Amino acid sequence: MSRQAALDRDRADPLAARRDLFELEDGLIYLDGNSLGALPRAVKGRLAQAVEAEWGRGLIRSWNTADWIGLPARVGARIAALIGAAPDEVIAADSTSVNLFKLAAGALAMRPGRKVILSEPGNFPTDLYILQGLARFLPGVELRLAAPGDLHAALDERVALLLLTHAHYKTGALHDMRALTARAHEVGALALWDLSHSAGALEVDLNGAGADLAVGCGYKYLNGGPGAPAFAFIASRHQAEFQTPLTGWMGHAQPFAFRDDYAPGAGMLRALCGTPSVLGLTALEAALTAFDGVAMADLRAKSRALGDLFLDLVAERCPGFGVACPRDSAQRGSQVSLTHPNGYPIVQALIARGVVGDFRAPDVLRFGFAPLYVRYVDVWDAVEHLVQVMAREEWREDRFNQVAAVT
Amino acid sequence: MSRQAALDRDRADPLAARRDLFELEDGLIYLDGNSLGALPRAVKGRLAQAVEAEWGRGLIRSWNTADWIGLPARVGARIAALIGAAPDEVIAADSTSVNLFKLAAGALAMRPGRKVILSEPGNFPTDLYILQGLARFLPGVELRLAAPGDLHAALDERVALLLLTHAHYKTGALHDMRALTARAHEVGALALWDLSHSAGALEVDLNGAGADLAVGCGYKYLNGGPGAPAFAFIASRHQAEFQTPLTGWMGHAQPFAFRDDYAPGAGMLRALCGTPSVLGLTALEAALTAFDGVAMADLRAKSRALGDLFLDLVAERCPGFGVACPRDSAQRGSQVSLTHPNGYPIVQALIARGVVGDFRAPDVLRFGFAPLYVRYVDVWDAVEHLVQVMAREEWREDRFNQVAAVT
Repeated sequence: MSRQAALDRDRADPLAARRDLFELEDGLIYLDGNSLGALPRAVKGRLAQAVEAEWGRGLIRSWNTADWIGLPARVGARIAALIGAAPDEVIAADSTSVNLFKLAAGALAMRPGRKVILSEPGNFPTDLYILQGLARFLPGVELRLAAPGDLHAALDERVALLLLTHAHYKTGALHDMRALTARAHEVGALALWDLSHSAGALEVDLNGAGADLAVGCGYKYLNGGPGAPAFAFIASRHQAEFQTPLTGWMGHAQPFAFRDDYAPGAGMLRALCGTPSVLGLTALEAALTAFDGVAMADLRAKSRALGDLFLDLVAERCPGFGVACPRDSAQRGSQVSLTHPNGYPIVQALIARGVVGDFRAPDVLRFGFAPLYVRYVDVWDAVEHLVQVMAREEWREDRFNQVAAVT
Repeated sequence: MSRQAALDRDRADPLAARRDLFELEDGLIYLDGNSLGALPRAVKGRLAQAVEAEWGRGLIRSWNTADWIGLPARVGARIAALIGAAPDEVIAADSTSVNLFKLAAGALAMRPGRKVILSEPGNFPTDLYILQGLARFLPGVELRLAAPGDLHAALDERVALLLLTHAHYKTGALHDMRALTARAHEVGALALWDLSHSAGALEVDLNGAGADLAVGCGYKYLNGGPGAPAFAFIASRHQAEFQTPLTGWMGHAQPFAFRDDYAPGAGMLRALCGTPSVLGLTALEAALTAFDGVAMADLRAKSRALGDLFLDLVAERCPGFGVACPRDSAQRGSQVSLTHPNGYPIVQALIARGVVGDFRAPDVLRFGFAPLYVRYVDVWDAVEHLVQVMAREEWREDRFNQVAAVT
């Protein structure tokens, strides 16, 4: 495909106008929305208003007058619409890690007598770390890891919970949520899906797949800003019996009655813990308006096409790179992963040229294609930059070989 | 004291100029900084910069270039200076409730064989709720409650942890941190102090008192904004052995190595869990500059004087009110609590007049005196409003008797 053809595809893109909803500097090609989403223009004014009017002038009264108290459920309902959940099945608060802990512990309580949690090696680290923390503190709990091809066989009657990340953070590979959930149910286990790398980027249908529990990240494809609140999903059928060890006051049936004894709140409210970040939720709520009126099928179609275009151009123009993601876009999230022994300095050299992707050890170059704001021409230009970085051997420069604190 | 005398005291107040660091509307008398601190002027511009420059333009690169990764420790070090801790003993992230869980679970792990956690009835609800959640999930763990006068006797060799709130949220009564910590140590127990109602309002000396662990709130006297990140303190001597079940990736020794196995980070970093709220921490960091150069002794002296003035004026001018806080300001945090059978509508009538305090069931009217921005004349005027509310029986109006969702 020529650069002109890429420009033509942008002109025909039904999502093209969405890019204007984001602040993106001219000349920047941002392919890391899978790590931190771009800034939606709506956030700036809304956050300033929340600070000046709601906090500054409304002060404590804004819990009522600005409905701060309703934020976790209100933001949750917006996210629910993107992931195939009912509005009252999702709540936004805390971090993905904390929500994983709440739900995994809650799942164990719902399957008394079962002590095994099944996941896969190489799952996003915090998923594994949280399960390890849980297993160390709860006597008898065992973390079992099985490679994707072995998951069906590893699901047996001892398994309380299957916990997987829908789109793999490093390879972008998608799990078959429906099939794996069904298999988990066959053996009486629950299924918890981490949607951190899929919510807002592709069609997720939690209830269609029969999922029991889910968590996800607010600052990747949902564009909620650095460290944005995460979300949690509990299928309606499980909410009444759900209990978590993280019983903070905001999850209480009557938080402002200040009783000594905990009583779980109605529905998803019981998945709250402490006071949620009002500023963070406000930014996330404004950010989510960028999805208003978007057909998730359009989003997914564009995401697949962007990834395919990138892979095709790399195959054609950049010899020496391996492909660590599925080539079939139906099997892939909204990111593409290449491999190269000099991956780290190559990514740094691209960043210096204004093409922002990231590197994941040992040799993976990740490029995310957030379909709300990445254009076909961005993909074309990114590959052109990559061609030049390799042709000029820019990655050999010392400055690109110094490892930063965070990479 | 006459109103003129109150004005004279403001003129002589060494902290008087600090009020200009806050956005406070003319005519508003804000006596609820113990629930949500006022907006420091420094926050607005700093937060806008973080949104526009760091998130909007720096994007993912700001983890390095804006040192987002260092925020929890940097903010923690600022808070440490206010609570008698070393800079590397405090970290800011998550909510008070989540931090309570981390530290209480960590304390149990440091006292193997002991299963009792001791607190008091009527402690701030989330403290009790979190302990109840822990006790329900960890076999054998028992929550023991003893009234303040019985705490010494209730501390025995079975107690792993004493958890108390330094300044009581409802009565403002202070615990003797030094004596109770010493008694806990005598029986081999650890002491965890919740500083939510004392940090930033009075002199706290965690290391002087020999405290083991502490948590506290970022949005009360620290003025970090609604739902601001909370903080956690672990005394240096305990950090190496500290472990928490909430082992998220940000607490890992090498979070960006993306290893499958958890290994705790150095020092306080291991008390982190998921990705912290960068926007929330940025607001809190800016807010804390209001304390730069403040002598905590001046802060405490003013806080005591404001409370004493309020109580004296109420005793003189407002018959019919009980006093639910210690009359001796040395025994009291930075708030004053009255009681009245019509407390709820009286508080509402005061709010309608621009005097913002709050109500806590069943009959407590709370008034907080944040010494950075409350003036002596505010106290005088607040009591004048109270006199008028009572004289005109304004609290009988229907609109003041409708209970709001959050009160």
